[in-house]
Amino acid sequence: MNRPTDDLGIRSDTSRAIAFSDAVFAIIITLLVLDLRVPDVPPGRLLSGLLEQWPGYVAYLASYAYVAIVWLNHKSAFNRIKESDRGLHWVNLFVLFTTALLPFPTAVVSDALQKHDQQDQRVAVAFYALIGALLCASWLAFFHYLARRKDLLREEVSERHFPAERVRALVGVILYVAAGLIGYLVAPLAGLAIFVVLPVFYAVTSAGLYQVPLTRRMARRPPTSGS
Amino acid sequence: MNRPTDDLGIRSDTSRAIAFSDAVFAIIITLLVLDLRVPDVPPGRLLSGLLEQWPGYVAYLASYAYVAIVWLNHKSAFNRIKESDRGLHWVNLFVLFTTALLPFPTAVVSDALQKHDQQDQRVAVAFYALIGALLCASWLAFFHYLARRKDLLREEVSERHFPAERVRALVGVILYVAAGLIGYLVAPLAGLAIFVVLPVFYAVTSAGLYQVPLTRRMARRPPTSGS
Amino acid sequence: MNRPTDDLGIRSDTSRAIAFSDAVFAIIITLLVLDLRVPDVPPGRLLSGLLEQWPGYVAYLASYAYVAIVWLNHKSAFNRIKESDRGLHWVNLFVLFTTALLPFPTAVVSDALQKHDQQDQRVAVAFYALIGALLCASWLAFFHYLARRKDLLREEVSERHFPAERVRALVGVILYVAAGLIGYLVAPLAGLAIFVVLPVFYAVTSAGLYQVPLTRRMARRPPTSGS
Amino acid sequence: MNRPTDDLGIRSDTSRAIAFSDAVFAIIITLLVLDLRVPDVPPGRLLSGLLEQWPGYVAYLASYAYVAIVWLNHKSAFNRIKESDRGLHWVNLFVLFTTALLPFPTAVVSDALQKHDQQDQRVAVAFYALIGALLCASWLAFFHYLARRKDLLREEVSERHFPAERVRALVGVILYVAAGLIGYLVAPLAGLAIFVVLPVFYAVTSAGLYQVPLTRRMARRPPTSGS
Repeated sequence: MNRPTDDLGIRSDTSRAIAFSDAVFAIIITLLVLDLRVPDVPPGRLLSGLLEQWPGYVAYLASYAYVAIVWLNHKSAFNRIKESDRGLHWVNLFVLFTTALLPFPTAVVSDALQKHDQQDQRVAVAFYALIGALLCASWLAFFHYLARRKDLLREEVSERHFPAERVRALVGVILYVAAGLIGYLVAPLAGLAIFVVLPVFYAVTSAGLYQVPLTRRMARRPPTSGS
Repeated sequence: MNRPTDDLGIRSDTSRAIAFSDAVFAIIITLLVLDLRVPDVPPGRLLSGLLEQWPGYVAYLASYAYVAIVWLNHKSAFNRIKESDRGLHWVNLFVLFTTALLPFPTAVVSDALQKHDQQDQRVAVAFYALIGALLCASWLAFFHYLARRKDLLREEVSERHFPAERVRALVGVILYVAAGLIGYLVAPLAGLAIFVVLPVFYAVTSAGLYQVPLTRRMARRPPTSGS
Repeated sequence: MNRPTDDLGIRSDTSRAIAFSDAVFAIIITLLVLDLRVPDVPPGRLLSGLLEQWPGYVAYLASYAYVAIVWLNHKSAFNRIKESDRGLHWVNLFVLFTTALLPFPTAVVSDALQKHDQQDQRVAVAFYALIGALLCASWLAFFHYLARRKDLLREEVSERHFPAERVRALVGVILYVAAGLIGYLVAPLAGLAIFVVLPVFYAVTSAGLYQVPLTRRMARRPPTSGS
Repeated sequence: MNRPTDDLGIRSDTSRAIAFSDAVFAIIITLLVLDLRVPDVPPGRLLSGLLEQWPGYVAYLASYAYVAIVWLNHKSAFNRIKESDRGLHWVNLFVLFTTALLPFPTAVVSDALQKHDQQDQRVAVAFYALIGALLCASWLAFFHYLARRKDLLREEVSERHFPAERVRALVGVILYVAAGLIGYLVAPLAGLAIFVVLPVFYAVTSAGLYQVPLTRRMARRPPTSGS
């Protein structure tokens, strides 16, 4: 009687969390283009102006691929989640927070690499790596939460799935820190190159690293229809 | 016969209102990053330029957390709503309106605290508090509408839920006004600090203040899977 | 056999058209805030800078209310639609096109009214009225299409609904043209005031003008729960 | 036992891919308006300032129509898809990537045509054509993937549908390259005119080129209700 509320806010299905997250990822991945600007060059120099912006295109590509991987990860994780609670909402909002930051270091890297100060370029690449590592750290928190909350997961989810994902997130933290150190200590462009490669590496391993029996299963469903 | 219309526009399920609101919240929370800009500094000064923008990061954090709380509140409220009508649409659009304003005072506070005019800083913090209080006031209107429209709610919703939520919204108005006064009369940075803390306070109380039996219920569902 | 395709692209349910439209409306209504900028004033003048931007706030309010009405109209129309076809997609995309334009004349009006050239203010208000009228004209096309395609509508939709809506859209075109003429020939601020009032007028009439039996029906469902 | 994961990430229904894509398309189509700016003209010159921006309006129209066609294509394709896998996600993300680029060449064309350097105008139109062709190429990859993966499609989909769509995408690549060549070698404005016409051509042919029996089928469902 002295309970003025009810059960409705405590557990809920994940549909709104998914819709909200999808919209956030969609906006982030699309906002990146706002940093590709008409080059501010004298008349007749548009072509070289466009070409000289190449670090902006590379940074755009790296961040686009990163957000795409984040979305695929998110989709794959929520496919395994049955119900969400407040704690899951907050770790999810932490993932969205770090992902939403990404356009900022992307702009910083793009800008620094189009100017010619080595020290600023080192700082910019290190800054991008910092946010990249923070994003992996938010996934670590997300997977860690789920590894301990089997009651939120669908029954058929393997007990070892989220602990294994946790390892992948931790490797991501380490790789971004390493890329930042290489970019800062060795050469900024080397760091940028790693930022482009890392999502590709992730895309490949996410479907292959610990999913050995996958090939066998795929073989049962022929990828090209022979009929 | 002289009725050229039908029932279809009067009552409706809430799915489109929810989808629209989710998209609006997602855009607001993501647009905030557009105010984090590449610092406009001379060559070699990027690091200090990034560090000197710290009030922008704090303002970003405060507004991100605020919109996150608004989304959680919205989700929790609509979980209890069965049907929507024109009146509910308008109070919902009022909530979206005040939330959509938030990037504006966020940019004003961020800008003023990076410059060094005390009077402008006081004004900026008071302005943020004003919009923050207006946002709580829109929730007050929203909860007040629902407190009087039991016919729109799901059957299992406690009669005391939305009246109690109304109190929470009113406390929010008071707290933002207080933060504005402290920021204006005492110290702008104190106001900013309160803006960061307020959403945290709300996040905690929303699941704890008047939900005493919650702990008991949670105890029945072990948070960590022992199996 | 020489038919390399199938029926699947011709008729379809409306869910994706609704989801896409909701997202477009959500983005438009939220993008409006990007035109509220930190005032560019000397130190110590932030308060007066914020106050002097009042035409921007009024223009924001007018456009926010306009998009809100468009969304409510859209929701109300699609509640009556069973299936969509290519033609409906195109009239829908025309509505989205004119609505998506709205932030542009909003920025033009806001900017002109903060400067002090009478001629520019007249032009700006006339321009806003032109886009406002075009938006109503796109609804006219939308309702006209549906008035002739009963096969796309749900069975219970009154035959007179969409013809009646067509009249409302036509009245909207006339009212925006009239507001533009008043703003251009009499006083820009009078035009701006009408832009704020028009959505309010529409919100009221949409639920009241030709829905006389509505009150009776509502009376059967008490708006405040007496239990 | 040494399989720490499960089937859940490999195949999935398409609802999230659709929701994410819809949001991305909605954002792209709406972001285009951000490039329509208040003209920077001396007092009293707003009208001519607005008129002189006409290339911006034409570029906006071309890109709006292009994204609209992309969305219609996407909807039509996913109506035929039963399940998605990693490969489909990646070709879909490639389509989203090239579409998300579109606001950038739109801004470049709009800017160059408002200035008066012929060489820059040629470059800008060629650049737009390049991205336009790349977008068609991403559709080519998308349709090519589906043409080989009948197991992902709904049963009733004709075997010849996606191979035929592939041809349409290839024609698109050729047409954009041709438009770029005409714009670069003959006259930039001719290229711009083609950019506006191309989506119209696509809209018409997509429902008519190889769907000969369509008219017959439509005849069975009268477009205007005679009742």
